[in-house]
Amino acid sequence: MASGRRVPIYITSDTDEGGGLMLEGGLRDTASEPDLAVLAARFARVRRVTEELVKDLTAEDQTVQSMPDASPTKWHLAHTTWFFETFVLADGDGRYEVFDPRFGHLFNSYYAAVGSRHPRPERGFLTRPGLDRVHGYRRHVTAAVRRMLEGAGGEVRPRTAALIDLGLHHEQQHQELILTDILDLLARNPLKPAARTLPSPPSRNPRPLRYVAFEGGLHDIGHDGLGFAYDNEGPRHRVHLSPFKLANRPVTNAEFGEFIADGGYARESLWLADGWAAVRGRGWAAPAYWLGDGTAMSLGGALPLDDEAPVSHVSYYEADAFARWAGKRLPTEVEWEIAARRVATRGNLLDGGWLRPLPGDEADGEEPGQMFGDVWEWTASAYSPYPGFRPSAGAIGEYNGKFMVNQMVLRGGSCATPADHIRATYRNFFYPDARWQFSGLRLAEDA
Amino acid sequence: MASGRRVPIYITSDTDEGGGLMLEGGLRDTASEPDLAVLAARFARVRRVTEELVKDLTAEDQTVQSMPDASPTKWHLAHTTWFFETFVLADGDGRYEVFDPRFGHLFNSYYAAVGSRHPRPERGFLTRPGLDRVHGYRRHVTAAVRRMLEGAGGEVRPRTAALIDLGLHHEQQHQELILTDILDLLARNPLKPAARTLPSPPSRNPRPLRYVAFEGGLHDIGHDGLGFAYDNEGPRHRVHLSPFKLANRPVTNAEFGEFIADGGYARESLWLADGWAAVRGRGWAAPAYWLGDGTAMSLGGALPLDDEAPVSHVSYYEADAFARWAGKRLPTEVEWEIAARRVATRGNLLDGGWLRPLPGDEADGEEPGQMFGDVWEWTASAYSPYPGFRPSAGAIGEYNGKFMVNQMVLRGGSCATPADHIRATYRNFFYPDARWQFSGLRLAEDA
Amino acid sequence: MASGRRVPIYITSDTDEGGGLMLEGGLRDTASEPDLAVLAARFARVRRVTEELVKDLTAEDQTVQSMPDASPTKWHLAHTTWFFETFVLADGDGRYEVFDPRFGHLFNSYYAAVGSRHPRPERGFLTRPGLDRVHGYRRHVTAAVRRMLEGAGGEVRPRTAALIDLGLHHEQQHQELILTDILDLLARNPLKPAARTLPSPPSRNPRPLRYVAFEGGLHDIGHDGLGFAYDNEGPRHRVHLSPFKLANRPVTNAEFGEFIADGGYARESLWLADGWAAVRGRGWAAPAYWLGDGTAMSLGGALPLDDEAPVSHVSYYEADAFARWAGKRLPTEVEWEIAARRVATRGNLLDGGWLRPLPGDEADGEEPGQMFGDVWEWTASAYSPYPGFRPSAGAIGEYNGKFMVNQMVLRGGSCATPADHIRATYRNFFYPDARWQFSGLRLAEDA
Amino acid sequence: MASGRRVPIYITSDTDEGGGLMLEGGLRDTASEPDLAVLAARFARVRRVTEELVKDLTAEDQTVQSMPDASPTKWHLAHTTWFFETFVLADGDGRYEVFDPRFGHLFNSYYAAVGSRHPRPERGFLTRPGLDRVHGYRRHVTAAVRRMLEGAGGEVRPRTAALIDLGLHHEQQHQELILTDILDLLARNPLKPAARTLPSPPSRNPRPLRYVAFEGGLHDIGHDGLGFAYDNEGPRHRVHLSPFKLANRPVTNAEFGEFIADGGYARESLWLADGWAAVRGRGWAAPAYWLGDGTAMSLGGALPLDDEAPVSHVSYYEADAFARWAGKRLPTEVEWEIAARRVATRGNLLDGGWLRPLPGDEADGEEPGQMFGDVWEWTASAYSPYPGFRPSAGAIGEYNGKFMVNQMVLRGGSCATPADHIRATYRNFFYPDARWQFSGLRLAEDA
Repeated sequence: MASGRRVPIYITSDTDEGGGLMLEGGLRDTASEPDLAVLAARFARVRRVTEELVKDLTAEDQTVQSMPDASPTKWHLAHTTWFFETFVLADGDGRYEVFDPRFGHLFNSYYAAVGSRHPRPERGFLTRPGLDRVHGYRRHVTAAVRRMLEGAGGEVRPRTAALIDLGLHHEQQHQELILTDILDLLARNPLKPAARTLPSPPSRNPRPLRYVAFEGGLHDIGHDGLGFAYDNEGPRHRVHLSPFKLANRPVTNAEFGEFIADGGYARESLWLADGWAAVRGRGWAAPAYWLGDGTAMSLGGALPLDDEAPVSHVSYYEADAFARWAGKRLPTEVEWEIAARRVATRGNLLDGGWLRPLPGDEADGEEPGQMFGDVWEWTASAYSPYPGFRPSAGAIGEYNGKFMVNQMVLRGGSCATPADHIRATYRNFFYPDARWQFSGLRLAEDA
Repeated sequence: MASGRRVPIYITSDTDEGGGLMLEGGLRDTASEPDLAVLAARFARVRRVTEELVKDLTAEDQTVQSMPDASPTKWHLAHTTWFFETFVLADGDGRYEVFDPRFGHLFNSYYAAVGSRHPRPERGFLTRPGLDRVHGYRRHVTAAVRRMLEGAGGEVRPRTAALIDLGLHHEQQHQELILTDILDLLARNPLKPAARTLPSPPSRNPRPLRYVAFEGGLHDIGHDGLGFAYDNEGPRHRVHLSPFKLANRPVTNAEFGEFIADGGYARESLWLADGWAAVRGRGWAAPAYWLGDGTAMSLGGALPLDDEAPVSHVSYYEADAFARWAGKRLPTEVEWEIAARRVATRGNLLDGGWLRPLPGDEADGEEPGQMFGDVWEWTASAYSPYPGFRPSAGAIGEYNGKFMVNQMVLRGGSCATPADHIRATYRNFFYPDARWQFSGLRLAEDA
Repeated sequence: MASGRRVPIYITSDTDEGGGLMLEGGLRDTASEPDLAVLAARFARVRRVTEELVKDLTAEDQTVQSMPDASPTKWHLAHTTWFFETFVLADGDGRYEVFDPRFGHLFNSYYAAVGSRHPRPERGFLTRPGLDRVHGYRRHVTAAVRRMLEGAGGEVRPRTAALIDLGLHHEQQHQELILTDILDLLARNPLKPAARTLPSPPSRNPRPLRYVAFEGGLHDIGHDGLGFAYDNEGPRHRVHLSPFKLANRPVTNAEFGEFIADGGYARESLWLADGWAAVRGRGWAAPAYWLGDGTAMSLGGALPLDDEAPVSHVSYYEADAFARWAGKRLPTEVEWEIAARRVATRGNLLDGGWLRPLPGDEADGEEPGQMFGDVWEWTASAYSPYPGFRPSAGAIGEYNGKFMVNQMVLRGGSCATPADHIRATYRNFFYPDARWQFSGLRLAEDA
Repeated sequence: MASGRRVPIYITSDTDEGGGLMLEGGLRDTASEPDLAVLAARFARVRRVTEELVKDLTAEDQTVQSMPDASPTKWHLAHTTWFFETFVLADGDGRYEVFDPRFGHLFNSYYAAVGSRHPRPERGFLTRPGLDRVHGYRRHVTAAVRRMLEGAGGEVRPRTAALIDLGLHHEQQHQELILTDILDLLARNPLKPAARTLPSPPSRNPRPLRYVAFEGGLHDIGHDGLGFAYDNEGPRHRVHLSPFKLANRPVTNAEFGEFIADGGYARESLWLADGWAAVRGRGWAAPAYWLGDGTAMSLGGALPLDDEAPVSHVSYYEADAFARWAGKRLPTEVEWEIAARRVATRGNLLDGGWLRPLPGDEADGEEPGQMFGDVWEWTASAYSPYPGFRPSAGAIGEYNGKFMVNQMVLRGGSCATPADHIRATYRNFFYPDARWQFSGLRLAEDA
């Protein structure tokens, strides 16, 4: 979408997927027509990237569900397509022919207003339709949307354009989930197969841990309405906070290793009560996917742990315990956002395609670094509505905010997040025991 | 403790009991000696009230545990006593003779630093020691503390006095739990027995629902250090908020009945996702203890529901769904505290001894009413540390803040809360599915 | 009941209690009138024994339920009384006044035909009625039955006499359950309190393990109709079996200790698949109640294990694994019964009151010993109906045989079984993972 | 194997698969050399049939695991191959090259003696190796065995020939499991896809229910040693039984429908206690796969229920409840075997390929009909060892009999059982709540 003008802000949150997905929204202050050519190009690119991401996976890989929180690749491919079919094409000129009327039930995630849905924990039983047919579904819907965008000329209503844009953000969110969900599946295979061959990491000069000071006082927080955002990023509002300091980089594997070596997983006093129950009940003794031999499962199979790379696949409980052990604390999401405004966003999903968190580089200078593109960072903030947050009216809006309890906010963006899906105001959220995302932490302290 | 001077602020949070209990603290700015005569009188009174509360219960009633979240009365009687024995008498002149060395293991709630503990879900298996012996334990410890206070003259160190005061707040918190836990037990008995005979409620003229406006801007929130508080009530800090309105009274049984009649428990769109899962998984169709025939279980047995009394025994999920249904929202804890400062605290635990939420009275005037003394009110705020909150040093402090995740803050105080245990800054907290406390709600909206 | 004449054979099986209780039956071939004086004396004695058994237990002990399989003592006291009230007094002259009409719901175990019932796992929530009131209930019903027996002269119908006799067997079965259930409760108390003070065991000269040979061929098995029996002990029927040998005594604690020392609990190859799952899932490493220091919990508190006494509190899985380890097998129930016919029954519940399994004595001679009165012995036989077994008609008979799946037969009788409740044809049965009964084993092998 | 001479009897029981699989055995009385040409032909045929069975399934279908009791098709394909690799080729001339050393861990079912194994409930996570590679594994092993059989001439030791024969029976057992497991998976798909296109059923003239009388007395039961058998079918032994009658055909869908219409699933009195718990806990209201609209899921997708065909996919509990409702009982396995000796075995897996139970035909005459080839029939017999049953020595024998508890015997053979895998002495066994096999029932009564 064009820059410099006010565009749709969307209402949000499809975290049934485990993290915030989008729902729908209302147009706001769109002074000018959407640029359909730009939108069409973006549509083509995003759809293609999704298919690119899965090309090395077999049909079998793409069918199985590793746990209720994760979905099969094939389901992601179909669900993102269903989104366009249901909210864009059915909202379009009426000439669209539904690909298969039964897919509405199969690939609806949780939108009760648009019909029944297949139970989430049973998505892995859908060996039919097969992958080929799902790709046929994708082609059918992609073509229909392209026809709408290309052939329609000025006929595309702003609302429709906004919904297409929304569908693309939705699909980008699922791109990340495709990667994290397939990692969780392949990690359960004793053969530790790779989802794809990963490039060798770039050479970097790690920089030492340092704390950057920030001023307190009044700040405006939340999305400013320029460019796309989910509704949970607003309304922008004023907060008062005290001065604080933030680490210039996330906690590394080596640092987390010290915590383990110091008995971190065996000392009740370091843990939240619910965290300790998780440690004991599930036998946690290291981050998820660590294999105990200096390697960890990755999208490239079992690879040696990089000491200087950010630790990943830790739960909120582990992040919190580490911070307590270190004598620090996690930042709040407000603190994080204030700091993040000073740095440029970055993603390494396609830019490099490393698909794993990388060490920082001393070239990053004095500012907080690696705030985007390596790991999502657990904050100390529970996921709650911003003041003045209101569910939008209408069918999709029925579910707004339905995930705003029991989850914690993560900020930033990971090595699996598309670069243009990353922004400083983005509020990701997961249950505090979730470990299958690329989730790490950054330390903070009072000034 | 005397008024008008700075006294100990204690560090907190024994919510293993289901709600915030206290732990320990450090003395701060106590310019003068504690008034031991006042403390001795308070000690005598609080200990006596506990015993008064249970006098109509049989030894059998006092032994059984209805669920892991609740504890047997007998365990409460012993645990509050163990607290004085462990933290005051063992901290005293060294002449104290431990009553039974095995009780440390049995009646420690979760203080790992002071030794092992009996598993919480197995407290109901402790048919021995018997109730008589537990009362003997109480007498032994009460006498020892009284000797310390009365005979010791000026020998009582300020820290010891502070710990005694802390022990009394601890015991008052358990007084409320004694009542809510025994209610939960007796509610499971088909005979619906009364814990005691309740007096007839006073005559009141209910007043209509009205919203009171409050200004936004900068406010200082949290305990100001005058008088006792738990550590989670501080540090006092500055917040910025928008103007808001708050209902002049809690939601009533009649209003909640309308929600039910309108299909409130059957409409997924009204619920948080986790709330809906609870509704379906547990078959909720009304507040806890409602018997389906216009009566509900109470401490006085099955009694008719009073239409005008605050609804009670609802979970956070139900409170939130009701607010969404009503087109309003729950207040944040900051909003609640700002409003509560304007009204006097009140308790009806002993002042009246109604032991159930009562209707409001139009004599309450224009201000928000019933903020104390009927039901704890769920707020929209997750239980998190205030900015600058720091765990205190030392053995007990090891556990500070360990409950600050996954729970929601309740404010106010209920019909089971001792009047002098109620204050505007008090932060109670429970998991969002808890229903056995006297928990209700009050509506709010943006101004 | 008198000897030498054919008397009622009752239909059975109240194993909701964990072991076979009786239900009801039909009269068969009672050539003569029942001897009411004998029955009255037996009634007085059995009722008195029950109360004697519990006299050292506190009201608190008698109220708590340790697990769903066990019931509170108080519930046993009331349920056995309810049985007489429901099946005898309501079946009587119509002049009986029900003690409390609500007790039918509370103390019905599972007889659907006679009304609703309180859920079994919630029996421990019944702090009311209190123990005193339950004793009042007992006195009320005892007096009414005695009036019926004493004052009625020849008016007592044979069916009523039979039901009274049945009620006494029922109560005797619950006497054993009172003991095993209270043991399970007290074993969960870290204080390891005694249910009563046990006498010192008699001096005995243990005898070495020897195998006694039995002939194969055709045998008639099952109850012969002389004297009382449950319906599951019949019909008597002919079986063909091969010659076999049976150990002259049960496996001892010392022998079981060798199994443990030899890694018995760590060798998958020794276990049934379901047994191995139980070992791993529950962390079994020794019989239930063994405390790991050479002592084990008993009705007399923690006592030293007697090497020569029969091992007790083992599951079927452990019995089976031990036999495999020893290169032997468990006997079938038919083999056991053939051997048991040659020896006199014995019980040590009241005869001695040892209340724990005792070592055998070489004075027992050549015959198989200790077949009664120490431990129930797991057999290799699944609990199935005998050929020709038919559920009886009528209300109670609706449930006949309802437990005849998934359970294994135990034979003999334990130190907690009343002596006159023991007989060679008795078929006790429990799930193969049950350990809270006095359950042991005896080895067998093919001849 | 040739007829009329004594051949290997194998020791058994791989019911980790849900039903009895074979393990290993000892040669017994093999007077002559095995006929290698016959064996080679059988080997080629059985391997080919397996591949034929799965040819219409997609790679995705063959990868997913629907529940812990079921395995993916691909796993079956690999496991049966692993069996030959491990027990035949590794037992062979030493020149065999293992296909992939990691497959031993992946495709071992539960033979602890031959190494570690992948957890059963996680078989569905094995998206790698892919189906193509598994077929490569099959070809590799098939070729090696064929070389051994064809090229080796007289070098094949009798033991090796016996193991090959065993492996073929093992594979045939898995052929049935492939079908029942894929049915369970496809039944969970809302699209109700067909595993293959089924032929129209043959025309039949149903015959009325009739009871056939059998004499009691002494009978010899169990395998006589002629031809292949699993070890659990022996030793042959003598039993004594009473005269009985057996229905001439299994219970039909129409008859089972009457049970449902008569409130069968709502009447506690008809059920075993454990069965009633299953009905309530799982919401059973009809046989598995019934769709409530007169159709039921089958290997051919959703098809109309045939009133005259045997009811299938009922648990033991349902079979038992039906029999009680009908005033009859289930036969014991001994009764069943005595009757089955009089009729010829039949299978319809490949002979017709109906792949669903068919109605009986009046042409079947006076004898009991449909004892083989439609549904397995639940018997009243718990799965226990026959008298004199002994686990065989050696590595594999360590597990013998490990499933002989908590399961019930089924007799006969279903529409998914290979015809030459069916025999009168075959003892199949499943837990009493299992419903995903083709399991039905036949009524019996005392004569």
